[in-house]
Amino acid sequence: MPVGINIGEKFASFAEHWRPKVVAELNGQEVKIVKVQGEFPWHHHDDGDEFFLVWKGEFRVEFRDHIVSLRPGECVVVRRGVEHRTCADEEAQVLLFEPKGVVNTGNVRDQTFTAPNGSQA
Amino acid sequence: MPVGINIGEKFASFAEHWRPKVVAELNGQEVKIVKVQGEFPWHHHDDGDEFFLVWKGEFRVEFRDHIVSLRPGECVVVRRGVEHRTCADEEAQVLLFEPKGVVNTGNVRDQTFTAPNGSQA
Repeated sequence: MPVGINIGEKFASFAEHWRPKVVAELNGQEVKIVKVQGEFPWHHHDDGDEFFLVWKGEFRVEFRDHIVSLRPGECVVVRRGVEHRTCADEEAQVLLFEPKGVVNTGNVRDQTFTAPNGSQA
Repeated sequence: MPVGINIGEKFASFAEHWRPKVVAELNGQEVKIVKVQGEFPWHHHDDGDEFFLVWKGEFRVEFRDHIVSLRPGECVVVRRGVEHRTCADEEAQVLLFEPKGVVNTGNVRDQTFTAPNGSQA
């Protein structure tokens, strides 16, 4: 039976940074939430586009040739194959739409930042 | 070049009810926004799940056997094949994530409510 999901409560349920949590799955895609602070490694995703929507705080998606700075209620699409990194000077909360099973660091494996897949919030 | 999209500005760019506008496309899916007020026809979608996230106002997704009432920051997934209708007593703003090309009234064609596809915000 479909139930409502409160995104704020889901964000309140964990504290770690750079560990996306799945809040919903549909059509082979996942809706995830993540808390971020600092600088993520440069990477790209070969097989999927990513959608970032800022929930709280200030968040940047940096490309090699420009930076997209986002505030709450602002979003951006990063196309497959495009190198990028995500950054936040202070903690930010971000909602993601992307294909199920995407590795957060894409083509890179990083001991600190590569997160397990499929964690639920 | 990827650019930031301000969802609030996109909502401010139109006034009609029940006419979803595309704000982003990724992985064969679309992120859409819609203003709603009143009761939508009962329908289902054969080929895709739908994700509803309330942006502003109060919004209900009604199923034949229960109702999911949502406030801003709350969301629900409606699985393919499941009959439902959406309702709002006063105007509400809703963000959708669903496969590209979905007809808003699903299996039903309705002179008032069936909306053209692919309108941009």
